[in-house]
Amino acid sequence: MNLEITPPAVGASASAGAEAAAAARSLHDRLAKPRGSLGRLESLGVRLADMAGACPPPVPEPAVVAVFTADHGVVAEGVTSWPQEVTAQMVAAFCRGGAAINVLAGHAGAEVMVVDVGVAGQVERSSGVLDRKVRAGTANLAVEAAMTDGEARRALDVGAEVAAGCVGDGARCLITGDMGIANTTAAAALVAAFTGRQPAEVTGRGTGIDDATWARKVNVIERGLERTGAGAGPLRLLAGVGGLEIAALAGFVVGGAAARVPVLLDGLMAGAAALAAAALVPGVERWCVAGHRSAEPGATAALEHLGLDPVLDLGLRLGEGTGAVLALPLVQAAAKVLREMDTLDSL
Amino acid sequence: MNLEITPPAVGASASAGAEAAAAARSLHDRLAKPRGSLGRLESLGVRLADMAGACPPPVPEPAVVAVFTADHGVVAEGVTSWPQEVTAQMVAAFCRGGAAINVLAGHAGAEVMVVDVGVAGQVERSSGVLDRKVRAGTANLAVEAAMTDGEARRALDVGAEVAAGCVGDGARCLITGDMGIANTTAAAALVAAFTGRQPAEVTGRGTGIDDATWARKVNVIERGLERTGAGAGPLRLLAGVGGLEIAALAGFVVGGAAARVPVLLDGLMAGAAALAAAALVPGVERWCVAGHRSAEPGATAALEHLGLDPVLDLGLRLGEGTGAVLALPLVQAAAKVLREMDTLDSL
Repeated sequence: MNLEITPPAVGASASAGAEAAAAARSLHDRLAKPRGSLGRLESLGVRLADMAGACPPPVPEPAVVAVFTADHGVVAEGVTSWPQEVTAQMVAAFCRGGAAINVLAGHAGAEVMVVDVGVAGQVERSSGVLDRKVRAGTANLAVEAAMTDGEARRALDVGAEVAAGCVGDGARCLITGDMGIANTTAAAALVAAFTGRQPAEVTGRGTGIDDATWARKVNVIERGLERTGAGAGPLRLLAGVGGLEIAALAGFVVGGAAARVPVLLDGLMAGAAALAAAALVPGVERWCVAGHRSAEPGATAALEHLGLDPVLDLGLRLGEGTGAVLALPLVQAAAKVLREMDTLDSL
Repeated sequence: MNLEITPPAVGASASAGAEAAAAARSLHDRLAKPRGSLGRLESLGVRLADMAGACPPPVPEPAVVAVFTADHGVVAEGVTSWPQEVTAQMVAAFCRGGAAINVLAGHAGAEVMVVDVGVAGQVERSSGVLDRKVRAGTANLAVEAAMTDGEARRALDVGAEVAAGCVGDGARCLITGDMGIANTTAAAALVAAFTGRQPAEVTGRGTGIDDATWARKVNVIERGLERTGAGAGPLRLLAGVGGLEIAALAGFVVGGAAARVPVLLDGLMAGAAALAAAALVPGVERWCVAGHRSAEPGATAALEHLGLDPVLDLGLRLGEGTGAVLALPLVQAAAKVLREMDTLDSL
């Protein structure tokens, strides 16, 4: 699928969605509880009905967390205190099952799928990682385009194909995950570009950097954006200052929306990817649920721009999909309320 | 157990708790993630270690939601738009399994237990409700004490015995639930008394009342508190302006703390009950986890007074235990992270 040339018809079911959403609102007012007393769980249920074009909506299960992993040439600028090797080490940890995302996904009953879309180091072939490497890490976005437009397009396609594959295999909820040392630099650059905010506004501390490193990170983003140009389109921005896993996540969001399956967004990388996806294919945000408010300022900027309200606000800034998978039981509960509760007239 | 005369020694494990909490903090810093990157999930894990006096802490499961139900004579003042009969109707709905708490507890894997501590109407004997009726609803707190001190004491004992029974049967997480038409009036009165705030500050819209009803509700609370006296102790306050299910919930909190099992608090009624419990037996709040921030202002006032930070903030105001049971998977996840994640040195 070439997302720029043939965007999927994600808007096709708009009228069915609006009808289902209205039916869900009306059903909520008849359930055995005071009107509106389930708060955000009610609006979430209405959104699920809209996405599915059905009331009550199906329970979003089974769920798959796709953890897209890639490296970032910008690590050479000293924007993070963690060495690049950690990306490959964490891929190995995902395969062993001992990373945070494994524990939390296991608890929530979601499957973890690891996709190598651009890890710089060697990833063991036997490790169960899906090999979709577009290139072995990006170039340094401070001094040159992170990748070519063609590579960005291939990474988008990887994400869209993974989403379609998951749904083809039965998944009814897609969850974004990511791993890539230095990827908050690329993501913050994209958020600045898509939201029109200043880099300093949307640049956070990532894994926990000091003031000097933070200032360097902001400067790197400013240089990358200046080189890429303010008027660049979404594909050119992804190529200029993005990352391979972020581009893949953007394709994953588009793929989920095309399949009319809820896409549960994690933090900053997912926010940047959803902004790119919505710029490429307007309307895809209708299928996005913001799992949580990451502690990274760029994540909040992205969600505000997309008009999404996060389910959780627990100060997480780990990535991997952890905040999104923690929200999964709540999203599923929102559907179950509409499917299983008695109505007032049955009391 | 007479809670006033022989409070359980909930503070006995304080040093073991502090040691386990320190061990959990240190373990968190060694897990395969940036320090502090799991935000509130980390502090929750540390608290669970403190409660259990063990690191890693046990996963809080199985969990039981005890829904204490009772009626309120203050309904005669027109403080709510729902008739008293709804309490008994909802008890029947809990038994059929079609209420919100059944759906949400089922989703979270928690058992629902319904305790009649003071429903005014007849509750079917065959319905599976635990019959612990102290009296058939309280008196009207606007004009006389809601119950006698002896009745308040018996309701406290019911709650403490239910907690001990649940733990005896294997429960390792207790969740507060409640149902009682007009109970937000009693709960707001207790919150005002225990926190020293003005009734108008802590009185909310309950199931959705209009301005005139709200003003009447505030006035009723003011009259009840004036009659009971500002210097009244916790038992006298529970008797004067409380409710049977709120007193039982206070005993339930004390019973959970005595068994060193986490008690997951729902909204306003749980907050009022936890304030009473902490006044009766200082220190019990150490075993309380605030499941969510209810839309009722009194709930936030209670949590601030108790020093508890809610896990969720979804604008719920339904009661029954719904907000607490929605938080259960997150509380369990906090323990699993400490039990199952790899450490950095294993990468």
